[in-house]
Amino acid sequence: MTNPSLLILPGDGIGPEVMAEVVKIIGWYGDKRDMKFDVSEDLVGGAAYDMHGTPLADVTMDRAQQVDAVLLGAVGGPKYDNLDFSVKPERGLLRLRKEMDLFANLRPAQCFDALADFSSLKKDVVAGLDIMIVRELTSGVYFGEPRGIFEEGNERVGINTQRYTESEIDRVARAAFELARRRNNKVCSMEKANVMESGILWREVVQKVHDEDYADVQLSHMYADAGAMQLCRWPKQFDVIVTDNLFGDLLSDAAAMLTGSLGMLPSASLGAPMANGRPKALYEPVHGSAPDIAGQGKANPIACILSFAMALRYSFDQGDEAARLEGAVEKVLADGLRTADLLGEEGVTPVSTSEMGDAIVAAL
Amino acid sequence: MTNPSLLILPGDGIGPEVMAEVVKIIGWYGDKRDMKFDVSEDLVGGAAYDMHGTPLADVTMDRAQQVDAVLLGAVGGPKYDNLDFSVKPERGLLRLRKEMDLFANLRPAQCFDALADFSSLKKDVVAGLDIMIVRELTSGVYFGEPRGIFEEGNERVGINTQRYTESEIDRVARAAFELARRRNNKVCSMEKANVMESGILWREVVQKVHDEDYADVQLSHMYADAGAMQLCRWPKQFDVIVTDNLFGDLLSDAAAMLTGSLGMLPSASLGAPMANGRPKALYEPVHGSAPDIAGQGKANPIACILSFAMALRYSFDQGDEAARLEGAVEKVLADGLRTADLLGEEGVTPVSTSEMGDAIVAAL
Ligand SMILES: CC(C)[C@H](C(=O)O)[C@@H](O)C(=O)O
Ligand SMILES: CC(C)[C@H](C(=O)O)[C@@H](O)C(=O)O
Repeated sequence: MTNPSLLILPGDGIGPEVMAEVVKIIGWYGDKRDMKFDVSEDLVGGAAYDMHGTPLADVTMDRAQQVDAVLLGAVGGPKYDNLDFSVKPERGLLRLRKEMDLFANLRPAQCFDALADFSSLKKDVVAGLDIMIVRELTSGVYFGEPRGIFEEGNERVGINTQRYTESEIDRVARAAFELARRRNNKVCSMEKANVMESGILWREVVQKVHDEDYADVQLSHMYADAGAMQLCRWPKQFDVIVTDNLFGDLLSDAAAMLTGSLGMLPSASLGAPMANGRPKALYEPVHGSAPDIAGQGKANPIACILSFAMALRYSFDQGDEAARLEGAVEKVLADGLRTADLLGEEGVTPVSTSEMGDAIVAAL
Repeated sequence: MTNPSLLILPGDGIGPEVMAEVVKIIGWYGDKRDMKFDVSEDLVGGAAYDMHGTPLADVTMDRAQQVDAVLLGAVGGPKYDNLDFSVKPERGLLRLRKEMDLFANLRPAQCFDALADFSSLKKDVVAGLDIMIVRELTSGVYFGEPRGIFEEGNERVGINTQRYTESEIDRVARAAFELARRRNNKVCSMEKANVMESGILWREVVQKVHDEDYADVQLSHMYADAGAMQLCRWPKQFDVIVTDNLFGDLLSDAAAMLTGSLGMLPSASLGAPMANGRPKALYEPVHGSAPDIAGQGKANPIACILSFAMALRYSFDQGDEAARLEGAVEKVLADGLRTADLLGEEGVTPVSTSEMGDAIVAAL
């Protein structure tokens, strides 16, 4: 039997630092639980651009298609702000999502008990919060054609196309309903069916999938603007939220911030099953590359570590080991260890990125 | 001299109830300040559909083009959910915005001192908050062509088009910079230039308008997802935010909810100056038609009343009278009067929609 394979793409900014801590965790699983992974590492984003003139080399793309799971740090930074659109760091990430066809982006918005005071929301609004946002990740306005900046009369016009087919909506709706069944059995679908025809089709298909195959799950629909409001007002009303690529981008970031745990939140991007039964998969923290604090030992590695926990659960069917890792994270937080992003409370112990990683390994 | 003219469109749900209170205020200005308005009233949204089979009759559209300002209540309700897209209540509102060319939607997100406890955010995060979101209102994905649901192969595809010309971006950017000069001189522009070409053009044009004509205003740019996060984390970092139609829809609703004052927030939608120098203008509350509480005296008329205050300021150049009306609202709140949406605190006095209106008239 060969070991499962992982491709590590640390990327830019704090990506390499937080990924270094994940490598320690992977090492622990190999040594102590005899779960060995074949790990390879490569470049993405600005780091790939600096080396190859493209934010994702073809050879890296090929490798990502072959491994069991990709772990990504973060991409982007001011250094690359003036690059041409086609070679910006983000294009590397978007190419991975698109070519691996990772249509279901799972973004848990969870409030960690030890951090409930850290949210800008009142404690009773967020304590115990645990919702899952399922964002469509391979279509919509991110990828629709035509797109670009064109001449029209004597001025320019910027165009992007929002576009969803029935089958694209169908498959992400199924992913959401499946998750809901293993959670609290509730799905809220968000779009702007009151102003966009793509939203009308979205609502109709989600309802149809529900009625035909998931009638046991409680389904509601909400306009995305009302959804943004309700997330800010009383997020605990939700269990699973399913929405499109662009709405999902804004709503999941808002939800992540509400928990007070932004540096803590992982994500999984899943595609169709491969020949070995495992889904195509990429795991990455929700936070960005935070170039302002890169290289200073200030970054919180927990989001990236919890992304590896999601890999254990969704790619390698090791739910118990994922729970073990999540438990270790809870323990170090309960012990009062805090990276720079989480300081401010009394009586906590400030630690660096790598001290946090070491503490989690110790807690395992 | 003829009196300035107002067209009142109460619309659906709680629209007529809250507008009835505005009519009292208008009456007070006529009687006590000798500011007489020629007021006419007409139908919009579901109410117009019920009568005419269209959410906005042509004759109403014509009238809206001729008056000095339109005051709108709210549109929509479950009764109309299954209507064809082209005659949904929202289309009436969207037609007004488009044909009057109301490109600058001003949405103050303000936290009223008396209500700071009411927010789901911590008091120090929202107390004293006063930001202004300027949302582009006549273009973008709300109106771009092609749009619709089409057959493609053997399935359907839902399509909308995000589309901005340089001149559309230019004029709304100017509106934002002008406002900033009268406030705290800061503008933050939000888009997704990292994934959308329309966002690249947006950023470029806003920067150019700034550099050429508003270099004295402090300008920053933020991706809209980061903007959603920052609004939830520390909204006081912003003064004026300028953004497109769809991002503005979500971001302004989230911002409104954060203040805890959703039933309190007005908006102004302004177009180009008419022959008499006044801008084309429509004023409406940020909240919706709330069909669940319609007709029960539970609605809060303050958002609609403050929308009239915005009309005094932006259409009729009566900043002092606007401030008087805003002061009267602050006074009744400080006195502890609360409509049903704002109950929950100790020691306040519950009042009905019309009692609130009467109290504000008395405070004037
Ligand atoms: C980096 C960027 C392209 C990306 C997105 O917009 O999807 C990010 O914001 C995210 O949410 O993963
Ligand atoms: C009612 C609806 C069409 C409208 C919009 O989406 O613009 C509303 O949400 C708003 O923000 O004014």
